Amino acid sequence: MTNPDDRIADGLPVTDESTAADIVDPEDVVLVSGFGGVGYPKRVPIALADADRDLSLTVISGGGVGGEIDDALIEANQVARRFPFQTRRISRAAINEDEVAFHDRHISRFGDEVRLGDFGDPNVAIVEAVAVGEDWLIPSTSIGHTPSFVAAADRLVVEVNRRQPRALEHVHDVYQRDLPPNREPIPITDPVERIGSPEVTFDAGKLAAIVETDRPDDPYNFREPTVVDTTIADTLRSFLEAELERNPTLQDRVHLQFGVGSLGNALMGALSEIDFGDRTVVYFGEVFQDGLLNAIDEGLLSGASATSLALSVEGQKRLFEDVDRYAEHVVLRPADVSNNPALIDQFGVVGVNSAVDVDLYGNANATHIGGTRLVNGIGGGGDFNRNCRLGIIALPSTAGGGDISRIVPAVPHVDHTEHDHSVIVTEHGVADLRGLSPTERMDAMIDVTHPDFRDDLRRYRDRALEDGGHVPLNADFVSR
Amino acid sequence: MTNPDDRIADGLPVTDESTAADIVDPEDVVLVSGFGGVGYPKRVPIALADADRDLSLTVISGGGVGGEIDDALIEANQVARRFPFQTRRISRAAINEDEVAFHDRHISRFGDEVRLGDFGDPNVAIVEAVAVGEDWLIPSTSIGHTPSFVAAADRLVVEVNRRQPRALEHVHDVYQRDLPPNREPIPITDPVERIGSPEVTFDAGKLAAIVETDRPDDPYNFREPTVVDTTIADTLRSFLEAELERNPTLQDRVHLQFGVGSLGNALMGALSEIDFGDRTVVYFGEVFQDGLLNAIDEGLLSGASATSLALSVEGQKRLFEDVDRYAEHVVLRPADVSNNPALIDQFGVVGVNSAVDVDLYGNANATHIGGTRLVNGIGGGGDFNRNCRLGIIALPSTAGGGDISRIVPAVPHVDHTEHDHSVIVTEHGVADLRGLSPTERMDAMIDVTHPDFRDDLRRYRDRALEDGGHVPLNADFVSR
Repeated sequence: MTNPDDRIADGLPVTDESTAADIVDPEDVVLVSGFGGVGYPKRVPIALADADRDLSLTVISGGGVGGEIDDALIEANQVARRFPFQTRRISRAAINEDEVAFHDRHISRFGDEVRLGDFGDPNVAIVEAVAVGEDWLIPSTSIGHTPSFVAAADRLVVEVNRRQPRALEHVHDVYQRDLPPNREPIPITDPVERIGSPEVTFDAGKLAAIVETDRPDDPYNFREPTVVDTTIADTLRSFLEAELERNPTLQDRVHLQFGVGSLGNALMGALSEIDFGDRTVVYFGEVFQDGLLNAIDEGLLSGASATSLALSVEGQKRLFEDVDRYAEHVVLRPADVSNNPALIDQFGVVGVNSAVDVDLYGNANATHIGGTRLVNGIGGGGDFNRNCRLGIIALPSTAGGGDISRIVPAVPHVDHTEHDHSVIVTEHGVADLRGLSPTERMDAMIDVTHPDFRDDLRRYRDRALEDGGHVPLNADFVSR
Repeated sequence: MTNPDDRIADGLPVTDESTAADIVDPEDVVLVSGFGGVGYPKRVPIALADADRDLSLTVISGGGVGGEIDDALIEANQVARRFPFQTRRISRAAINEDEVAFHDRHISRFGDEVRLGDFGDPNVAIVEAVAVGEDWLIPSTSIGHTPSFVAAADRLVVEVNRRQPRALEHVHDVYQRDLPPNREPIPITDPVERIGSPEVTFDAGKLAAIVETDRPDDPYNFREPTVVDTTIADTLRSFLEAELERNPTLQDRVHLQFGVGSLGNALMGALSEIDFGDRTVVYFGEVFQDGLLNAIDEGLLSGASATSLALSVEGQKRLFEDVDRYAEHVVLRPADVSNNPALIDQFGVVGVNSAVDVDLYGNANATHIGGTRLVNGIGGGGDFNRNCRLGIIALPSTAGGGDISRIVPAVPHVDHTEHDHSVIVTEHGVADLRGLSPTERMDAMIDVTHPDFRDDLRRYRDRALEDGGHVPLNADFVSR
C-alpha cells in the first residue's frame, strides 16, 4: 500500500481488495461506476469473483463496463440480477439463458430509478476515481450515473486508479440534481458550458474502504470501417449537407450526437468530410469516441459534451498525454445531464444511432435478435431518437454476410416506435419518413433495402395492402 | 356582421365564412386550433366542406377537434392528408381505408415539427379565439399548438367565438418558445406558475380574415363510469396510497396526470377517495376534464395545469359561469409546455394513461386494433409514460363484452415500450413491473389478466419459456 498523496487524502480507510470485497454482503444490490466500457472498478469485482463465498448479487451499472465485471463476476455465478445495458458476450449469454435476470431502461432516467429503489434497495456503491477525500471523489474516464449511485448507496468503496490521470478532473462537470419534485431546470444554455464541479460529493460516513489500483480500462475495440460503413457515411453526409441548407434550426450552429459502436465511430470520423460552411459544430452526446479526437484536433469541432471517454487503448493514450488541452474542448457530465431530454431538445440535436433491424413502418429494434436474444442494450438510443430535432437511424441494409435483410416487414421487438425518430439511412440511401403515412413509408423503406431483398418486401407490401387498414400488415402476421 | 367591440379591435378584416374559406387554396397545408375536442374553428371548415371546389388539403391540428372538421370536411372528400391524433369515427374510417394519409407524433414535439415543415410548408392557420387585435389573439377553450401554428403559417384566419367567454384569458398562460438551438430552459418551478401572457402574438401582415361565430364546441361525451372503471379506480387508489408511504418523491407534494377519455375522467373523479394526508396535490397534465372540477371545488386539488379544457357540455357550462374563480386554480398552456418532458420529469409526475392492449413483456399498444386499424391517437401518452416518475397504464382486462383479453402475448403495434412506463393496472390488480425481467413480467401480467384468459396465457408462457431467450417469445410468433 502506498502512502496517502494527492490521490488519497490523509486518514482514509485504505485497504486491500479482499477486505473491501468483504464489505459486500451475499445478496447486496451493488452499484458500479462505468460507462462506455471505461471508468469502472476493477480490483474489487475480481476479488468478489474470486471470493470463496456464494453470492447472489444484483449488479447495476450506468452503461457498459469491462470484463472484470461482466465476464469474471458473471462466470463465477455471483450475479443473480444485472441492470441495464449489455454488450459483452458472456453476460449476454447468461441473460439469454435466463441465468441472470435483466431489464433495460433509458439512460437519462435510470439514475433516478436506482435512487428510488426500482431495482432493489442499493447497499454498496463501488466506484473508480482518480482521487478521493473525506466526502468527495473525482471520477475517472466516465461519470455515468456515479453521482446518483453514490447518493443512493448505504456504503461506498472507492478504487483509486493511478493509471488514470489526476488531470481528468479538468474535463469533469458534475452537476448533481435533487430528486423530484424539488429539482430545477438544468441551467445550461450552451452545450459545453460548465455548471458544476469536478467532484462527486457524499456523506463522509458512507466511505467504507479505499482500494488502490493501476489496472487499465478494458475499452471497446472498434473495427476498421468497412466499405458499407463508409458508404453509409457518404450517404449521411449528402443528406446532412442538404438539411443544413433547408433547416432553419441549423443555420448558425449544429449540435451532433453519434451512438456508441464501430459504425458510430466511423461516422464521427467522417465528420471532416461534411461541408458545414462557417457554422459552429458542437458534439452533444453520450460517448466521446476516437473519431472525435481528430475532429477536435482539426478545429472542425469546437467542443464536445458526453458522459464517457469511450476511447480505444490508442485513443485513451492520446487523450491522457494531453488532457489539459482536450479539457478546453471536452466536458464530461453525469448521464442524466448528457442524455437529458430537455437539453437534447433545447440544442436541437441531430442524432445518429443504430439498430439491429427496422421495419417497413419505421419501427426499430436496437436490442434483440429474433425478438428474443439480447444482443445489445438500448442505452441512450431512446433519449436521442425521441428528443432530437432530427433523429436518424443508420444501419447496414444486411446482416449475416448479406444473407439477412435488416429491413423487415415488422420488427419482432420494438425499442423505438414509428412516432420517435424521423429518418433511416442505409448504404442504399435515405428514407426520410417525416410526414409519411404507413403506406408511403413502406415504399420509402423498400428503396433503402438491399436490392436482393426488395422483391420479397414488395410482395409482402402488396399482400399487406390487400389486407388494408391504416397500418397494412399481412394477415399471416396479424393472425398470431 | 356586428361592429368591432372588446372582441375585435377596430379596423380588422371581418368577413363572412365563405370569403374566408376562399383564402384557402386547393392544396394548402391548413393548421387548425383545437385540442381535446374543444377550441377549434367551426364556421370556416364547414364553409370549406360546402365549397363547390375540389380541395386536396393537408389538415393539421394539435389534438382532437370536432365534427365540423373531422366529420364534415372529411366526408366532403376535401382532405388528402390529416395529422396527428384521431378519435372520431368518420375520420378514422377514411384513414383506415387509406383514403386519407395519416401519421401520428408525440404531442410535445409536434409544434416544432410543424414549424419546420415536416408535414409540408404551412400555408394557412385557422384559429378560434375569444378576442383578436392587430397582432394578437386570445385562444378560446384550448391552446394546444396554436402558438406554433400561428408562427408557422403564412396566412391567418381567426374565428372569434362570442359563445366562449372573454374571461378565458384569465386562464391562459401563453409562453412562446424560440426554435432550437436558441431556446432557453422553460423557467417554471411550480406546476401552476404563470410565465407568459394571455395572448398569442403574430406578424400583423399575416391576418387575412376574421369570422364571427357563436357555434358551440362539440366536446367529448363521457360515458358513466362502469363497474370495471370503478374497480380500476379502487385498485389504483390502494396502489397510490401505498406508494405515497414509500416513495420519497411524494412526501410533500403529489403531481398527477390522467389521460383523456372516459376511464381517465372516472379516475380523476375518484381522486377524492384517495387519502393524500396533508400533501399538496396538483394536476400537471394535458387535458382538464370534468372530474377535476369537483376536485377543485372540494379543495382537494390546489391547482391544475393543462392545454385543453376538455369538458363535457355540462362541465363547460359550469366553468364558463365561474371562469374567474376557476382561473385562480387552473392554468392553460401551449401543448409543448403542458407536455414538456423536462417539466414532467422536474415535477416527478405520477401519470395514468390507458391502452388498447398490453403484452406479457410490458409493451403497450394505444392506437391500433389488430396492429392495423387506427382506433385512437397516441396523444400525450408517450410524453407522460416516458417522462413521468411513475408511469402507470390503466385499462380494463377485457374488451368486446369480455370476449377479448386486453392482455396478450405480444401486442401487434407498439406505442409504449417495455423501457418506458413502470406499472400496469387492471380491475384484477396491479402489475408493478419495476425491476422485473421479461420472465418475471410474464407472471406479473398473468396475475392481472381476466381469470377467463389466464390458462391460455400460462400455456403461452410455458411454450415461450421452452423456446428460451432473454425475451421468451413462442416460436410460432417468432417464425413469421
